[in-house]
Amino acid sequence: MNEKEFKCALESYRKRVDEFLVHYLDSLKAVPKALKDSMEYSLMAGGKRIRPILCMVCYELFTDSVKEILPFACALELIHTYSLIHDDLPAMDDDDFRRGKPTNHKVFGDGIAILAGDALLTDSIRLMLSCNLNNQLISKAMKEIIDAVGPQGMVGGQVLDLELTGKNDCTLDELKHMHLLKTGRFIESACVCGAILANSPDSQISRIREYGKMIGLAFQIADDILDIEGDEKIMGKPAYSDIKKGKCTYPFLLGIEESKRLGWECVKEAISAISVFKTPQAEFLKSVATYIMTRTK
Amino acid sequence: MNEKEFKCALESYRKRVDEFLVHYLDSLKAVPKALKDSMEYSLMAGGKRIRPILCMVCYELFTDSVKEILPFACALELIHTYSLIHDDLPAMDDDDFRRGKPTNHKVFGDGIAILAGDALLTDSIRLMLSCNLNNQLISKAMKEIIDAVGPQGMVGGQVLDLELTGKNDCTLDELKHMHLLKTGRFIESACVCGAILANSPDSQISRIREYGKMIGLAFQIADDILDIEGDEKIMGKPAYSDIKKGKCTYPFLLGIEESKRLGWECVKEAISAISVFKTPQAEFLKSVATYIMTRTK
Repeated sequence: MNEKEFKCALESYRKRVDEFLVHYLDSLKAVPKALKDSMEYSLMAGGKRIRPILCMVCYELFTDSVKEILPFACALELIHTYSLIHDDLPAMDDDDFRRGKPTNHKVFGDGIAILAGDALLTDSIRLMLSCNLNNQLISKAMKEIIDAVGPQGMVGGQVLDLELTGKNDCTLDELKHMHLLKTGRFIESACVCGAILANSPDSQISRIREYGKMIGLAFQIADDILDIEGDEKIMGKPAYSDIKKGKCTYPFLLGIEESKRLGWECVKEAISAISVFKTPQAEFLKSVATYIMTRTK
Repeated sequence: MNEKEFKCALESYRKRVDEFLVHYLDSLKAVPKALKDSMEYSLMAGGKRIRPILCMVCYELFTDSVKEILPFACALELIHTYSLIHDDLPAMDDDDFRRGKPTNHKVFGDGIAILAGDALLTDSIRLMLSCNLNNQLISKAMKEIIDAVGPQGMVGGQVLDLELTGKNDCTLDELKHMHLLKTGRFIESACVCGAILANSPDSQISRIREYGKMIGLAFQIADDILDIEGDEKIMGKPAYSDIKKGKCTYPFLLGIEESKRLGWECVKEAISAISVFKTPQAEFLKSVATYIMTRTK
């Protein structure tokens, strides 16, 4: 799959996610206007939709259609958006800009921002439950996601992040563990959910899990590198913002070159984990792994 | 069922909930200490456990045992606790005391308090999914709860509460709608979930729903009255705190006597809705309705 074909496919998946999210927002009845506006503001702020796309494509690896799991896949974007809104709050990372726009609490105030996050997290469950699929598969996939984003996953990772910020003697093991919880497991589980929902055998799920784990790690390393080398205008947030906050990052611990080498090693391992699959969807997933390291935002 | 028997049964149910919650907290592995401490602090702060108890007893109305739905019932307490932690934040109600102890953010800081709430909400889903029951029933019961606590329910109600606070011309309809969303639907759905999980027929679920709706309304009216007439020491929070914040309440709009009359009317309707049930559990539920208006905290 050449780069042009990949970008085209990526854009097409992204559009399907965006269309579904618009439809979701339209369907919200009896929601106070300030709350709906705040949810919409962050949900439609131009995210890459990487988690829903990974879920969809990993599902398509084993099936012909993707329509029936769209609510589940897009629920992952609600969870991701909730986590960004809460992470940006003054009580946490205290960020003023994200994706080139003022952060949610800067526009709607801290109270509504907290509630918009709560609403998105709660409604992500409603979307997952609304899938027209076997209840047992949905339940298994939900367990996978919930484990990845709860106190033993993403929320725990955010606590570790707060604790490591400003700590001068952060070790590579601490950094890896924090990122695994905060970012890695969610990306991994987005992939795994697709395979679970397609009722694929455990042996195949293991391959997808290894792929997801490796791109999750590469994703965070790339993020840390972008904080230093990225273009502020393209990223929509100030450069060096992690460094300025005293965050522990891969370049801080390993230097830029070694971080890049480590990132590309993860990409290679991700591609190798799914080398047995030969469909266009598998080729797309391999390109996603590369894209994660070469993206500019 | 006389008062002594009721208090004894209530205490016995409460103990089962507390035991399960201790077991739940013990089971949390790989959770950063600060996060776990914060979750435990609010979860074990001596709540009445009314939502899990309602769920358990409404299940027992139709079944012999309650053990298999304990994780589901107790998940409701996680959701309730998350909502209290977030509501108490400076960005929302800005409360310093709850149940006689400093509020979560006063002890752990705003950041950890927000994350403890997020963790409890997310883990409530994990508990619900862990029930050893038919997946279809669990899924139906989860939909019921999630609808009640999301943007079209509890979270939306909290937004309306923020909007009505300090508003001098709040109407009775606005107040009723706010409370229905913020408190009423969650209490109603706690009851309904028990009946759903027991696979009871729609005609019976409707009765339980009407009961839950009425005690939900009575619960909030009683809360508003307690704010004025309650004993600070027993309640564990300052009296007149709603009034001082400029909150719209039933006594503010209707006066104390009319509020009490309305509350007791709801109790009567709740009892009438389940008059067809003649078991000890039904008698207990009828006593719960009365207890809601006579409680001192």
